[in-house]
Parts: sequence; C-alpha cells; structure tokens
Amino acid sequence: MTVQTRFLTARSRGHGDVVDLTAELGQAVKDSGLASGIATLFVSGSTAGLSTIEFEPGAVQDLKLAFEKIAPEGADYHHHATWGDDNGSAHVRACLLGPSLTVPFQQGRALLGTWQQVVLVDFDTRPREREIVLQLLGE
Amino acid sequence: MTVQTRFLTARSRGHGDVVDLTAELGQAVKDSGLASGIATLFVSGSTAGLSTIEFEPGAVQDLKLAFEKIAPEGADYHHHATWGDDNGSAHVRACLLGPSLTVPFQQGRALLGTWQQVVLVDFDTRPREREIVLQLLGE
Amino acid sequence: MTVQTRFLTARSRGHGDVVDLTAELGQAVKDSGLASGIATLFVSGSTAGLSTIEFEPGAVQDLKLAFEKIAPEGADYHHHATWGDDNGSAHVRACLLGPSLTVPFQQGRALLGTWQQVVLVDFDTRPREREIVLQLLGE
Repeated sequence: MTVQTRFLTARSRGHGDVVDLTAELGQAVKDSGLASGIATLFVSGSTAGLSTIEFEPGAVQDLKLAFEKIAPEGADYHHHATWGDDNGSAHVRACLLGPSLTVPFQQGRALLGTWQQVVLVDFDTRPREREIVLQLLGE
Repeated sequence: MTVQTRFLTARSRGHGDVVDLTAELGQAVKDSGLASGIATLFVSGSTAGLSTIEFEPGAVQDLKLAFEKIAPEGADYHHHATWGDDNGSAHVRACLLGPSLTVPFQQGRALLGTWQQVVLVDFDTRPREREIVLQLLGE
Repeated sequence: MTVQTRFLTARSRGHGDVVDLTAELGQAVKDSGLASGIATLFVSGSTAGLSTIEFEPGAVQDLKLAFEKIAPEGADYHHHATWGDDNGSAHVRACLLGPSLTVPFQQGRALLGTWQQVVLVDFDTRPREREIVLQLLGE
C-alpha cells in the first residue's frame, strides 16, 4: 500500500463554473501503477467545491441556477462587511457542496458511472486558477 | 494494510427514496477481518447520493420535502432540453448531496452514532436498481 | 502504511453553531509521525455535519442564515410527530451537509487553503458535546 500525491490545476470563470476533472483523475489512476484503492480529491480554498454530475451544458446550467436560488450572488452577506469582499455567496455555497470527494478505483479504473463526471464547481465571483489535491491510496 | 472492494445492490423507488445500507456496511466490515480503517461508499451514477440520517419515516419524509423545495421535480430544467429526460431535478439534487461517503471503523465496527444510518438517496424519477461501491482500506 | 484513530470532543451551542477543528487536525497530523496520507473526519450523530469554511464571524453567520432558509428551525417536521422532538430541521440540514470530510496531508501538514478551516456545524436545537472521529491513514 502506498500514497501518491499530485496537484491538479484548473482554470475557471467563477460564478458557479463547472470544470470536468474526470480525464485527469483517470490518467492519474493509470499512471500510478496501482490496481485498487481510493482517489481523494480536495480543493484547497473556501469558495469552490467538488462533486460529480453528468457534465453536459443543460445539467451544468441547472446546477448554477439551483445555487443561485440557495445563495444568490447579489444578496447582502455578513462576510462582505468583514473584508469588503463580494463573494459571501461563494463561501456559503462551497461549504454546502463540500471540498472533498473520494472515488474508489479497481483494476486501474475509477469506478464512476458512464454519465458521471468528477467536477470542480467554482463559486467565486471572478475567474480563478484552482489547485486541487489528488491523492491515491492503494496497492 | 489491504484494500477490499465490494459492490452492493439497492432497489429504490426513486423520487427521493431513501434506502438504509447500514446493515450491509456492518456486515462487510465484520466479514473483512480488518480491525480498523475506512469504509468508502460511492454510488456509480449521477442521480443518487449518499449520506447519513436517522432512518425513521418522519425524517425521511422531511428530507424528501426539503429536496423538493431546493429542486422541484416538476420544474423546467435545461437538462430536459438536452436529452428529452425528465430528471433534471435528480441531477441537481445528487450533485448537492454528493456521491461519496467515508465511514471510519475500529475494532471491527463502523463508528456511527446510535441513531445514525448510512443511506442511499435516489432522486431519479423512476424506480432504479443501484450499484454502490463499498471499499475498505485498513489493517 | 498505518491507521491511527483518535476522538475529538467539541462543545457547541447548537442552532447552526460552527466549531473550528483545524488546530486539532493539524496537531493530530503532526503527532502521528506520518508524512503523507488522508485524515478522515466523521461526526457520530445525525444532527451535525462537517465541511470547510473561512472561519470568520460574517461567513459563519451567512451559513447559519442559508440553512435557516433551506430548513427553518420553526417549521413543522414529520420527525417531530415521530418522537416529540423539535429538531427535524437539524436532521435535514445534517444529511445535506454530510457527516464525513477527507483532508489529504503531505510532509506532515494538512493541505488546506490559507483561509480554509475544517469545521463542525451543529444543527441541533440545544447545546451538545460532540464526538468526532479523526482517523489518519498514511505512511
């Protein structure tokens, strides 16, 4: 059993932008030489989250609209008063979605569904370059 | 330290149906012969999620109603236009809840609270047979 | 590769109270003598959850208000009819947020962002003393 730690970089436009990380995950599992274990993805930062979705423009747009209903960008947030920031919505949304995702792999393949992609959802109110930790534990 | 991968099958009625997986998890931990480590559960598919809840009919009903408020089944979704599907609500809800859950175990027992059950929540708009990956890493 | 299991205790006021666990996590990773691996945090109980947030009073207050909108404390819940409880909102919120969080560490340091803290969010309707499992897998 070994641990392998990688860092992925993802460019996003913010505002609920969804970035597909499935190919990078698949490549990392393949490159690792590990047969089975877990891939932990973790986004370092408090205004983005990780999950899975069917990565097609319609579902992505629906997700954006759902988060806009839960925590609208244009509303007032106490966080704004603290720092003069404008991304209170992003902090609330990211906490709800969560920063970590764990995907098991077996026979060198992540055990995702056919229409299930691993995604970063970036809620910040400006474009960002994100760092995502991808750590494999397995044998 | 070893990795053990199993696949659970769960039948659901969809529409936010909640299926208790606690007994299967407990049995898998017991059967593994492992003393301590983590159990990762992962649902392969983008219209269901995993979490924990007190599995009693009232709380289950409350959860269904909360998700109906967040992403109503009967609303219009861009996802419907993409595929002619009717389960846009399911994609949004599943992404929010998340597909993975990690439960630590020790002395051969999952460290759940007394009133805390591990559940699949199936948001699809029809009955489904679901496959859940259950992977144990431990010693 | 070894497994180390610890139990953290956190006092909360309930009602969406947010407790910062970052220092305890950092200390545990340091004390473990492990260089790299994952820290799994899991709250035993069905009325609290775990995530990350920028732990400053404004963002914490925004989070409380967002959950109050999603599942108001004062609303009627079917769970109340089951047990005569008054914390149906807490069960719904905790299920949504999720009980588990996985944080990778490397070179003896949890790979959190600078403004990203690991937090317990306690949704119960009274003060609680919480037990959080903290399990490290690594080498």
